[in-house]
Amino acid sequence: MSRVPSRLVSSEQPERPHASAGTGGALDVVGIGSPLVDVLSSASDAEIERTGLVKGTMTLVDLARAESIYEALGPTVEASGGSAANTMAGVAALGGAAGFVGKVADDPLGRVFTHDIGAAGVEFHPAVEKTGQGLEAVGTGRCLVLVGSDAERTMATHLGVATTISPSDIPADLVARGQIVYLEGYLWDLPPAKEALRRAIEVCHDNDGSVALSLSDPFCVERHQREFLDLLLDEVDVLFGNEEEVIMLFGVGSFDMALEAGEETGLLVAATRGAAGSVVTTAAGPVSVPAAPVDRVVDTTGAGDLYAAGFLFGLTHGVDPTGCARLGALCAGEVIGHLGARPQTDLVALANSAGLMES
Amino acid sequence: MSRVPSRLVSSEQPERPHASAGTGGALDVVGIGSPLVDVLSSASDAEIERTGLVKGTMTLVDLARAESIYEALGPTVEASGGSAANTMAGVAALGGAAGFVGKVADDPLGRVFTHDIGAAGVEFHPAVEKTGQGLEAVGTGRCLVLVGSDAERTMATHLGVATTISPSDIPADLVARGQIVYLEGYLWDLPPAKEALRRAIEVCHDNDGSVALSLSDPFCVERHQREFLDLLLDEVDVLFGNEEEVIMLFGVGSFDMALEAGEETGLLVAATRGAAGSVVTTAAGPVSVPAAPVDRVVDTTGAGDLYAAGFLFGLTHGVDPTGCARLGALCAGEVIGHLGARPQTDLVALANSAGLMES
Repeated sequence: MSRVPSRLVSSEQPERPHASAGTGGALDVVGIGSPLVDVLSSASDAEIERTGLVKGTMTLVDLARAESIYEALGPTVEASGGSAANTMAGVAALGGAAGFVGKVADDPLGRVFTHDIGAAGVEFHPAVEKTGQGLEAVGTGRCLVLVGSDAERTMATHLGVATTISPSDIPADLVARGQIVYLEGYLWDLPPAKEALRRAIEVCHDNDGSVALSLSDPFCVERHQREFLDLLLDEVDVLFGNEEEVIMLFGVGSFDMALEAGEETGLLVAATRGAAGSVVTTAAGPVSVPAAPVDRVVDTTGAGDLYAAGFLFGLTHGVDPTGCARLGALCAGEVIGHLGARPQTDLVALANSAGLMES
Repeated sequence: MSRVPSRLVSSEQPERPHASAGTGGALDVVGIGSPLVDVLSSASDAEIERTGLVKGTMTLVDLARAESIYEALGPTVEASGGSAANTMAGVAALGGAAGFVGKVADDPLGRVFTHDIGAAGVEFHPAVEKTGQGLEAVGTGRCLVLVGSDAERTMATHLGVATTISPSDIPADLVARGQIVYLEGYLWDLPPAKEALRRAIEVCHDNDGSVALSLSDPFCVERHQREFLDLLLDEVDVLFGNEEEVIMLFGVGSFDMALEAGEETGLLVAATRGAAGSVVTTAAGPVSVPAAPVDRVVDTTGAGDLYAAGFLFGLTHGVDPTGCARLGALCAGEVIGHLGARPQTDLVALANSAGLMES
């Protein structure tokens, strides 16, 4: 049995007043994550191998390694990113009311991130680490994204000040306004950031909100398997992860076994498998939803983030889990059709024309 | 009769050793221009109008106005740009040996520009304005690019330190190595920059090179019509401009009259007209070359720059003027098919498959 509040999964969910960002009203989703600026570059398999990164995964790097990989990259394009931030930009692009919490530095990348997430319609409550406190050299986080000729992305992330977020950086008033609070697993790596997420969970539950967790990355799951499992059993209502991540999380031998384990937890689980689509747990058992058709896959960066955006938008707008997965697939399909991890086309129009948006 | 040295327009041009960037050998083209980082954003006609910018043109703005327009923009993508720099990146992408001269600040945008042009294979000799000399607030130039739903771009450029380039910033050794020196008209706005261009022309001519000038923008032509005409008559061999710019330059009433006037100057003139293609002056009179077919025009930023790249590559590789215009059209067609002003696909393969590259 799912612990997800019935108001989220019932089709009889009453209409809730639609909040707009900045009005101080209710929000559909509040994301907490690492504000990053993506630095995107095309790279051949040989070039990726020379960097020592593992293709298709995210590696945390220090500033020196980030600089040395950057030097080896071809021409780049910079665009705001960050997993949970991308998801919130997607929720807003669908017409949802989204908020975001994360820590930036008082530097050019921080200003770019802050501009872009505000311009995307997301209410951003930044914790700003002022320069002049010994953190100038750290700065706002950045993610070097190597896009292969097969469109798969390999990432080297220097989280910068993002991981210095601590419980006192969590704006309780913003978090309390979220119907769902969406947590980025990446933040679990440093104790103060972990405590910040725990604080957000507490505020969320105190206000009858639901908690969604993104597993973020297989290595991230490997590092925190035990703690993530404990968290899922006690605190989390909705779980996002890809095939590899959920298999690793539950320590099982196959995707089907991972889904079974997920069902046993009573969570609402949405597990993605790239071109093979996604599987969502429902009251009637697991349901497979195909990936959206895409003319040409250009860059898979943000696919999981935008899948979560569509899913969370649906979940906060009376859509059943299967429909949520369809909305997720639609949004993921848009973002992999171009370079960059945030939507570039009108998601509302896209969802309308696919018959996935009730107006 | 054209004053272009016959070695450039004769099909009997001897093979010249192909120089690689950084070896100190001969270069096909050396560009001199404004190093800029482009900040790209989608904008509706109404949004463009609210900024007070004139659609389809480039407006020079001070830092305060650049900041206020930036605040009003939607989410942005940052990518290295600058007209002549884009052209040099295109020449290098075609396999040509290209150099670039321009002034950046010792700041994050300057580092992005420097990384990207080097990664594009262009030999960059930056004049770096160190911070701490009262110019911190100015910084590396940036260009806010508002991309309309019709793919036309409207630009607000804050040139930053780019215009503080002066004759002493011109590396005579680099300029002397160029078979063609390509000048960006935009730089004509400030006296020291103008003198820097005059210095480059002098070095170029002393070393039997040819000079190419890009008219850059109708407003730029309006500001400097008389001086540009004097320059064309005395110093320039190859002229690039679009329809509006050449009409304004020659102060005539039609494109045909502008072409006639251009022919009378004896210049090799390559005049672009968007989707209508381009016209190039040849010994046998003006020849029209169609635009390359493009599936979907996404962003016209860089179209003129990449046209010049293809043209200049051809000119330095024994291609006749009509063939040069075809190479220009091919490169322009690539760059308008995606967001951003530098090539993202393999131009050599593209030119080969179009039968435009002799190997």
